[in-house]
This record gives sequence, structure tokens and C-alpha cells, in this order.
Amino acid sequence: MKAKNITPHVRLILWTLLFLNIVQTPLTATAQDAKPRLQSREWYDGVKSPEISANGDVTFRLFAPQAKEVKLSGQFGPTVPMAWDDEEQAWKVTVHPAVADIYPYNFIVDGQPVNDPANKDLFPNELFKGSLLLMPNPKMLYTERDIPHGKVHYCSYHSTVLGEQRTMLVYTPAEYDDNIQQRYPVLYLVSGTTDTEETWYKAGRANFILDNLIHEGKATPMIVVMPYGNMNTGNPRPSSDAATRCYEIFSQEMQQCVMPYVERHYRTLADREHRAIAGFSRGGGEALFTAFKLADDFASVCAYAAYLTDKVYEQHFPRLIDDPATTNSRYRLIWFGVGADDFLHDPVKHNQELFSRKGIRYEHFDTTGGHTWMNARLYLGLTLPKLFR
Amino acid sequence: MKAKNITPHVRLILWTLLFLNIVQTPLTATAQDAKPRLQSREWYDGVKSPEISANGDVTFRLFAPQAKEVKLSGQFGPTVPMAWDDEEQAWKVTVHPAVADIYPYNFIVDGQPVNDPANKDLFPNELFKGSLLLMPNPKMLYTERDIPHGKVHYCSYHSTVLGEQRTMLVYTPAEYDDNIQQRYPVLYLVSGTTDTEETWYKAGRANFILDNLIHEGKATPMIVVMPYGNMNTGNPRPSSDAATRCYEIFSQEMQQCVMPYVERHYRTLADREHRAIAGFSRGGGEALFTAFKLADDFASVCAYAAYLTDKVYEQHFPRLIDDPATTNSRYRLIWFGVGADDFLHDPVKHNQELFSRKGIRYEHFDTTGGHTWMNARLYLGLTLPKLFR
Repeated sequence: MKAKNITPHVRLILWTLLFLNIVQTPLTATAQDAKPRLQSREWYDGVKSPEISANGDVTFRLFAPQAKEVKLSGQFGPTVPMAWDDEEQAWKVTVHPAVADIYPYNFIVDGQPVNDPANKDLFPNELFKGSLLLMPNPKMLYTERDIPHGKVHYCSYHSTVLGEQRTMLVYTPAEYDDNIQQRYPVLYLVSGTTDTEETWYKAGRANFILDNLIHEGKATPMIVVMPYGNMNTGNPRPSSDAATRCYEIFSQEMQQCVMPYVERHYRTLADREHRAIAGFSRGGGEALFTAFKLADDFASVCAYAAYLTDKVYEQHFPRLIDDPATTNSRYRLIWFGVGADDFLHDPVKHNQELFSRKGIRYEHFDTTGGHTWMNARLYLGLTLPKLFR
Repeated sequence: MKAKNITPHVRLILWTLLFLNIVQTPLTATAQDAKPRLQSREWYDGVKSPEISANGDVTFRLFAPQAKEVKLSGQFGPTVPMAWDDEEQAWKVTVHPAVADIYPYNFIVDGQPVNDPANKDLFPNELFKGSLLLMPNPKMLYTERDIPHGKVHYCSYHSTVLGEQRTMLVYTPAEYDDNIQQRYPVLYLVSGTTDTEETWYKAGRANFILDNLIHEGKATPMIVVMPYGNMNTGNPRPSSDAATRCYEIFSQEMQQCVMPYVERHYRTLADREHRAIAGFSRGGGEALFTAFKLADDFASVCAYAAYLTDKVYEQHFPRLIDDPATTNSRYRLIWFGVGADDFLHDPVKHNQELFSRKGIRYEHFDTTGGHTWMNARLYLGLTLPKLFR
């Protein structure tokens, strides 16, 4: 749009139009929709959402004057309808999550999923473009405190395995920049199906969980690497051969690209005793497969709501399950965590039963809840104190 | 949902339901919507969008079977309608941007803005939750190449000025980790109104622009700091007193929090000759105000589609404009860039005219186009070679 030789008043309108040009839809809506309630809100006068009260009530608001029906869909409870509030000029609903936590959510506007325009915290995912409700909770390890913080590095590298540029995230502890002679153990932390390399950071808050546990002396200062678990194999079910193929490619990506990059660019303790790998969902399958495939590289593995099938163990790791004495002497930690309502609960338990039957030493922690990031964060906080001690 | 004692077939359904639990809406839609076309697509069988052809055509697709009307709104052209394609089971449209660039876009589903569920690249913004079309273009500096890459660090710090935890992004050049004795100049790079601290990275691709220019020897290896420009003052118009107040708080945040953090945590050349500040839109106003307010800290400033009013110069920087000899001897670079169609074109030119009239030396570059990130990236690429030489 041109903006020359204009009065200040027109300039204000154009200033508004600029952002309508960025936020194209309101412009369209303005042109199409003559409802007075649409005119009553300036583009920059955004609604407040989510609004968290001291008593734990959370109020969500959405300015969608053209909508016929708006609902709130969040992992803190069932989907609930929202009502248009003429005074606030927004669709509105107040809920009270039983536990103050971090929850993915979105609005459903006339059947269409929409994230919260007023919330800058997004859930990083290939399919689900939702928002994140971050509830303050001093008891929760994800809470950002005024203590020394580590950094999260976004690293761009060329994957010779996949033939493309990729990004991995690397957490370095607060002390890393000062102790320039010090080398650190490394945890590789992999997110799940449809997640991205950002999900353990933005939704998992792995950096704050590490900051807090290290500050309390409960975790060893360590480097945490968050690679992208998508091997361009689609989203196979964990029990399928396609999933095993995905895990196999991931172990190659780790050995040929990710680990060499990390060990070249960071001050790592580059031996198996100081390397661990953990993952949630598909990332847990990739973690188990990689730890057993690259037995000379990893001494510890944590599976968060994840497992491998008997078939995978028989075909790929026969000695692991048939020579428990060697396995038990080689692995410092094999850990499983799963929720009672997790749809993967039974196969995870089946993997544990196989190990028990074969005499393979492992630890496990059973929680309530389902296949959620609330549980993934919990499992990370439970396992970090066990690593590199 | 429980998933115990079930057949493999039910397990597949539950596996599907898991992601519907994450992507809550399709579950709701499934329950409400009996249209066969909805059944014909598995949750994980996502449509491909955007799909970029070798000839520069870009096809967008959206699976929204319940929608009555879907449009594509992108900064590459006018808003266009999309049509439901029964074969592809998706709303679809193909466009051909005149220039291969990076463009924010979103869908409009029955009047509601929606980002692209199939696209993992999001536009970081407080209000606009759009997606990014990243078109490969070897001529463009934003293109990620297989060369040594710098890193982008997400740094969490406590703002004593604003009384809250904040995040800033810091780019270090590829050579930074190897030359551990070397110190580097610092560019502070601020994004605009409604942008976040991530926008110069995710939409501006500042890291790749730096990587490429440094690799070609056209820019001095430097540290680039990307703070959050929102000072919790709302979104005032740039000519208002409220905007000036915002700029003032920003200069305090810079002096008391951002700069001390950067100089404590990074190997910087901590003198004004080796410090520059640049910004787009509001960030440009913050950059100009900060460079002139903290005259002992900055020797160079670049305003991308930004300006200060005569009133601000008269009230806050009388000596700057009334003693051009001193100003010209102190500042190595004062740079303005603006597009012919930018709604801020006239006030930016007015600021330049004031400087010309007063005899203050500055450089400027006039482009086509509007108040867009396409231009912001261009201005960054034009100014980086001028810094610290």
C-alpha cells in the first residue's frame, strides 16, 4: 500500500493496515464483516489469553467475531465450549486444571483447530500447531528460576546420512562457559513422532529441568543434545518393521553425523561411560535401538513410554538378551517409565517382562496418566539424577 | 484412554487416537462429522504443503473437510481462494511468487486465520500465528549452504529493569568455538512491533545471512545479539510519546541487563567502536534512540524502516542535531533503509531530511516494496558489510 501525502489520521489508519497486512485476515474480515463488535477492537488491542489467576483458574479468550461455535481443547481436561462475551468482545471460558503444569491446547473454531493468537508460546510439532499453557508451579522442575542458566544452542549441520541440512539443539550447563578446561558427559535426548528438534526445549523445558537439578546438586553438570528424530520415513507404528527401519537410520545418523558434530564442537567426555541416550515415544524406541546397536558408545539408556518388540531383540540384538551377564556388566542403566493410561503401557510392560525373564537388569517407574509431555517431563526429572554418577 | 487387553487392530485404532489426543480437534471432528472424505485420510497421512516446484510454482494444501470456504493469504500476492480437491482430499491452490523469497502466509478457513498444519516453519509473532514459505534461491543470502555455520544461543536472563525472566538470542560465528583467544565485535539486532526475540532468527534468518557473508569475506566475523524488543508498553505508534517511552525503557534494558549479560558471557570487544545496533520497525526506533542515548557505547546504528521524530531529537538529543561536527566525528555509520511502498516511508524520509538540513552524515538505501521481512532481510544484508571495517 502507498502511504504518501497523507494526513496524520489517515496515517493512523495505515499504521493499523500495516499490521492487518501482516495479519491478513482481520483486513479481509473488516472488508467482509460489518458487525459493530468487530470495529470495537483495535488490531493491537489484543485479548489477554491465557490469563492465570492466583487460585489456579485459567481464562482463555479469542477474538473471532465471525465464528458460530468456539471450543477449548486442552490436555488439562475435556473439550469445553466457549461463550461470546459482549463486554470483553471475545469468546471466553475459565477452567481450573487439577495440577498446575504445562499443557498443550488449541481453540476449535467452527470445527477448525486454531492456536491462541494472544499466546507467544507455541507447541513445536509437525502436525499439531497448538499453544502452550505454562502454569507457574514452584514444585515443578520446569519452572524457570532466577539462578544461573545454561544455554540452548541451535546448531545447523549437514546430514550425510539423510543428504540434507538439519538442526540440532544443544544444552550447555551454566558453568560451561567459565570452566573452559572442563569436559562434560553427554545425554542425547530424542523427542517423539510428529515432534521436532525443538519440542524437548519448548514443551519439555529440558533446559530449566537441568538448570534446577544441577543448581540443587541433584544432577551432574552435563551437555544435552536434542536431535530431530524424524528420519523421513513417515510416522510408522512402533511395533512395525518400518519403525525398526526408522530406528536403524537414526542410529546411523547418530554415529555418522550427530555424535561427530557434538564431539568436534563441544568439550565432551567422549567415552561410553559418559554417554547416555533417552527419548520419549518414537524417540524412546530410537534411544533403545541406538544404545543397543552402538553398544561401544553408550552405557545408559532411558525409554520414556517406549519399547522394542521381541522380534527386534531377536533379529538385531540376540546376544543382548541371551547373554544377560555381559549385558548387565556393560550397561550402567536401562530405564523404563510409562503411564497407567498410556496406550503403549502394555507393550512397554511386555519389554520389561522379556528383560526380567532373561535376567537383564533394568529400572522402571510407573506413573498415572497417558502418553503426554506432562509425563515426559516427569520421566526426565526422575532419570537425570541417575546419570553419570 | 485405557489401552489394555486389546487386539492389534484395536491397538492400531488407539495408536491413531493417541495423536488425535494430541491433535484433539480431528477427534472431535471425527465424532461430529460423518463425511466419508474425513474417514479417507489417516491422521498421520498429512497433505504436502507447501510444495515448491522447480519452476517456482508453490502449491498449498489444507485438510479441512468441514470448511465451507478456504483462502490463502500470503505476502507473495493477493489473497486467493482455495478449492477442495476430491482426489487429493484437500483444499488446494497453486501460486507463482514473482521472486523466490521467504514469505509469511496463513490460510483463512471460514473467516478464521489458520497456519499450515503441514508446515513446521512458523512465523514467530505475538499476534500473527502464521507459517513461513521458505523458497530456495541461491541468489538470496538467507539460503542455508553446506559451509561452516555459526550457532544461535537461546539465553535466559533476569531483567532487573522489567522484573521478569527474559530470553535473548545470540549468534556466534562458525570460527568462534575454535579461536578461544579471539574477541569479537557485537551487533545488537532488534525486531519489530508484535515480533518476538526469535523473529530475526526464524523469519530473518540472520544466522544464515551472517554465515554466508562471513564465508565470502564480505562481513567481519561478529557476535549478533537478538533481544526481545517488547518493553511491556503495548504497541504504540512510532510517532507517539508512548513509543518514545518504550524506546527509553529499551535503552535502560540494554545498558543494565542485555549488554552486561553479553559482555560477561561472550568474548566481546567491549568498546563503542566495536558495538553497533540495528533494528526493524519498532526495533529501528529502539536502535536509533539507544545509539544516541548511549553515545559512549555505540558508534554505528542502522534503522530498517524506522525513524525518530523531530520532537524526540529536540527533547532528548539536542546536541546531536545542533553540533553536527561532534556527531559526525563520533558516529561511524548512521544508516536508513525504507521501501517506496512502506507506510513509514514519509517519516523515515523526514528524519533523513532533518539530518541533511542539520549537516549530519548518514547513508541510506531506498528499495521497492513495503514494511516487510523481505525488505528487513535485504537491509541486514546491505548493512553487515559496512560494520566494524
